[in-house]
Amino acid sequence: MRAGLLAALAAIALPMPALASGVIDNVNGIALDAQGRIVHFNALLIDDEGKVEKLLPGRYQEPPPPPKRKKRKGEQEAAPKRLDFKLDAGGKTLIPGLIDAHGHVMALGLSLVTLDLSGARSLVEAQARIRAYAAANPGRKWIIGTGWNQELWGLGRFPTAAELDAAVADIPVWLERVDGHAGWANSLALKTAGITGATKAPAGGRIEMDSGKPSGVLVDKAMDLMARVVPPPAPKDRDIALEKAQQTLLATGITAVADMGTRIEDWQAFRRSADRGALRVRIMSYAMGLENMVLIAGPEPTPWLYDDRLRMGGVKLLLDGALGSRGAWLKADYADAPGQKGLPMIPSTQLRNIMSRASMDNFQVAVHAIGDAANSEMLDAVTELAETYKGDRRWRIEHAQIVSSADLPRFGQNGIVASMQPAHEASDWRMTTARLGEARLKGAYAWKSMLDNRVPLAFGSDVPVESPNPFPGIAVAMSREDAKGEPSGGWMPEQRIGFEAALDGFTRQAAYAGFAEKRFGSLIPGQRADFLLIDRDISVARPADIRGTQVLETWIGGKRVYVKGR
Amino acid sequence: MRAGLLAALAAIALPMPALASGVIDNVNGIALDAQGRIVHFNALLIDDEGKVEKLLPGRYQEPPPPPKRKKRKGEQEAAPKRLDFKLDAGGKTLIPGLIDAHGHVMALGLSLVTLDLSGARSLVEAQARIRAYAAANPGRKWIIGTGWNQELWGLGRFPTAAELDAAVADIPVWLERVDGHAGWANSLALKTAGITGATKAPAGGRIEMDSGKPSGVLVDKAMDLMARVVPPPAPKDRDIALEKAQQTLLATGITAVADMGTRIEDWQAFRRSADRGALRVRIMSYAMGLENMVLIAGPEPTPWLYDDRLRMGGVKLLLDGALGSRGAWLKADYADAPGQKGLPMIPSTQLRNIMSRASMDNFQVAVHAIGDAANSEMLDAVTELAETYKGDRRWRIEHAQIVSSADLPRFGQNGIVASMQPAHEASDWRMTTARLGEARLKGAYAWKSMLDNRVPLAFGSDVPVESPNPFPGIAVAMSREDAKGEPSGGWMPEQRIGFEAALDGFTRQAAYAGFAEKRFGSLIPGQRADFLLIDRDISVARPADIRGTQVLETWIGGKRVYVKGR
Repeated sequence: MRAGLLAALAAIALPMPALASGVIDNVNGIALDAQGRIVHFNALLIDDEGKVEKLLPGRYQEPPPPPKRKKRKGEQEAAPKRLDFKLDAGGKTLIPGLIDAHGHVMALGLSLVTLDLSGARSLVEAQARIRAYAAANPGRKWIIGTGWNQELWGLGRFPTAAELDAAVADIPVWLERVDGHAGWANSLALKTAGITGATKAPAGGRIEMDSGKPSGVLVDKAMDLMARVVPPPAPKDRDIALEKAQQTLLATGITAVADMGTRIEDWQAFRRSADRGALRVRIMSYAMGLENMVLIAGPEPTPWLYDDRLRMGGVKLLLDGALGSRGAWLKADYADAPGQKGLPMIPSTQLRNIMSRASMDNFQVAVHAIGDAANSEMLDAVTELAETYKGDRRWRIEHAQIVSSADLPRFGQNGIVASMQPAHEASDWRMTTARLGEARLKGAYAWKSMLDNRVPLAFGSDVPVESPNPFPGIAVAMSREDAKGEPSGGWMPEQRIGFEAALDGFTRQAAYAGFAEKRFGSLIPGQRADFLLIDRDISVARPADIRGTQVLETWIGGKRVYVKGR
Repeated sequence: MRAGLLAALAAIALPMPALASGVIDNVNGIALDAQGRIVHFNALLIDDEGKVEKLLPGRYQEPPPPPKRKKRKGEQEAAPKRLDFKLDAGGKTLIPGLIDAHGHVMALGLSLVTLDLSGARSLVEAQARIRAYAAANPGRKWIIGTGWNQELWGLGRFPTAAELDAAVADIPVWLERVDGHAGWANSLALKTAGITGATKAPAGGRIEMDSGKPSGVLVDKAMDLMARVVPPPAPKDRDIALEKAQQTLLATGITAVADMGTRIEDWQAFRRSADRGALRVRIMSYAMGLENMVLIAGPEPTPWLYDDRLRMGGVKLLLDGALGSRGAWLKADYADAPGQKGLPMIPSTQLRNIMSRASMDNFQVAVHAIGDAANSEMLDAVTELAETYKGDRRWRIEHAQIVSSADLPRFGQNGIVASMQPAHEASDWRMTTARLGEARLKGAYAWKSMLDNRVPLAFGSDVPVESPNPFPGIAVAMSREDAKGEPSGGWMPEQRIGFEAALDGFTRQAAYAGFAEKRFGSLIPGQRADFLLIDRDISVARPADIRGTQVLETWIGGKRVYVKGR
């Protein structure tokens, strides 16, 4: 009896009673090994901490029952594997949870609770949707929204305050462009902000003008003039927004996201969610500028919190604007706007000072650089700073959309990570050609060149600028065709990459970019068991088929957090 | 074998293996029961969650070893108590951990890392200490400090900028008064802040003037003029300060504190400490005003975090200033400053609006009210708001120092909690007599009247205005004599209270004031095991002896977090 008790205790003590361990059996398992090569498996064993215990090449076998015979004194009892659950996945495809290396979690959430103009195909449609929203939401003090893209409207120009007044004139309206780099105000909003023909745009910003009067659109830093008067979302609104953002991400198979530009209010919402056990998606947070970094994280990056669900590890800086609003900083004039080159939003010395300040306290630096001049500047800055801040820094260049040929090899130096968004290429290829002209496209969205230069290439969506759905992202990375299959064969097809590299970008590399590769991002034993069951085998599907992949189940840390249709 | 395994499992499953349980044996135990009456015990049993399991009237008895005989099938095995540790306290006195119902944790910490003028007995001594600090800390851009009290200097006036220049003139110097309600600047600091004879004090503040020029002291809201230019402490400084504050509190036997006026930077330091497992003292946080409340807690009070170590449950407002700087708002003129009545720092309607805004989201409201006019105003406001915000609100009036006789019974209405600081009475009795005159003292520091009116009476220190040491607080509550035993027999001795009530104020009532009475504050089974071993039996000691009590060990949540001399 006594020996039996001790043996039972030993069996329970190490490992602990398998309260949450389990097996996902009978799967078509696809993962990447430590070298980024595809591995296949048929069952996934999860331990009682929600981590991957083992990938089994064949089906799961029940361990034999413990022997009935009395054991001899001192004999070690083989701890029988006691699984808490067994799931037969019926042969479904299982892949690692996908990671968005560049998203805006709270902006996604707020876009789901405010006016969303995504996909409006014309000014008239946008106006109708604005009018309908105002009618459906009476009593609002402001109408706030996002998602418009005049490039889809065939106007050849920005919309105007008068055109917005035609939809709603009696309440101030403020609508951010889909890329967040411009905003559209109606006349009452302009008046409320005190913006007149005499108002000077702050450095790094532009007030669009028409006959000496503000026409209604504010670009980049000029948006701050409106931000001062627009009422901020209440904490409760943020909580609702975060929950909606999580639901959206989980339904598209995103199990972790780098939040690029976290403000204190966002962070507090993340913590509120986590404190009540409602944070499921893992958030790798990058503070919006130094002020938020110091206020949120303080003297150094935070630890990984809530079982690897939240960490602030770095700072996000904006070096230039975007191509759509011609805010991206180019080396030569825009092909479709002679005399304009875009502009740097941070002066050269200040950029280095800010990067230095963050690096000094071991924060990672992630800098938005879209135009070739911005990328050059950022490469210069990293080269200079890397002499002082040695070690594993993983300087991140976000977007890296337009890189001059001479600069491409420089990405492979000083441990720079390219954080890019395949979906942007599909959305932008026509506009990019117009903005730059054919001759300057060689280093545009140059994924293959990055890989050839051995640059860690992390993929994301830039949600809510694009849909967070990573499957079109994988498809575009492989095909460089948009949703309509255009251009057929791909835009600059020499920059297409293979499935393995595309999946790598949305898993291991995205984790690496956030210093998380030891915690999640692949299904190597010991990592958090973050994975998806999906409706097709994307390892053999054509890109056009990968695009339509449906997520059936999403699991994070060994727990099922999303089931399609439920 | 199988039955034995199941039985062993059952024994382990409920309760869990007693990994951290233990007994503090052989103590002279003193606690308060659910009715606030003293109970005695000789051993304290702690369960494996760090909670009180039982108070034993006699010494701890080892449970008998489990029976050797084979059990019959189905027989319940008596779970033998398996204690992780046993401590023989050698008969030492054990009391509940003491709670400070009103302190300023970060200000305490920062006072320990900046210039501390506490106890300076003359202007000359203060000047010498300032000079010495400047010499010992070369290269500082500012000299920041606190702790001065001109009442101890026999000047009959505030000190001047010129007198501070005489100590340090080449670096800006800014020193807050011991009560935090005034600050003393040198000429360079005044110049840096741009304060001249033409500067108008903001509402609720006063710039002390001399011949049309600022004399060097800024009172209450006028201190904001300096706060704008004084460099704030870096996060690392705050982390060091918090750690030092905790060490100080633990050494004086404080196991929980209400932080009265938490700013976002303070809160972030609390979380950093807790995130790395270094937060030992329990902090009941009250946000400094609505802005911090919304930013920190958001739409409602936070949950209890980190095993009941941190929660933001309410908001702190300042309705008036202090008696020392004549900022306390009185119904009639100051006896020693005809024409001055002090002033309300929040207009009447605004006070109600702010209280309403907080109450709407179920935040507790704690309002600093020192003068009799401020207390009247606060009682009026609570009476009005209590009609709308029903239920268990526990409106807190902080300090409640001077209450007119007619208002005393009103404290017993609407669930108001009086949060008072015995040490203030000992420090202030002479000054209070001077400020008010004998005729208006009846409701001054009126602890016994509060109890007679059945007002929950929570005690604190207002640290760093006073020492955080609660034992002099208990002694003063019982004696109304100061450290020198003056006035002999006590100042207004009819307001003395007994030991039981004094201990209650620093334990159960302080917990009640923070909605924490179900979690800690007494040693009722199920509560967190927060307790002290001390060097004397304070239940039988005279107040003068209680004052010198030494804390030998401090335990929080069943863990030893301080040992004297170690």
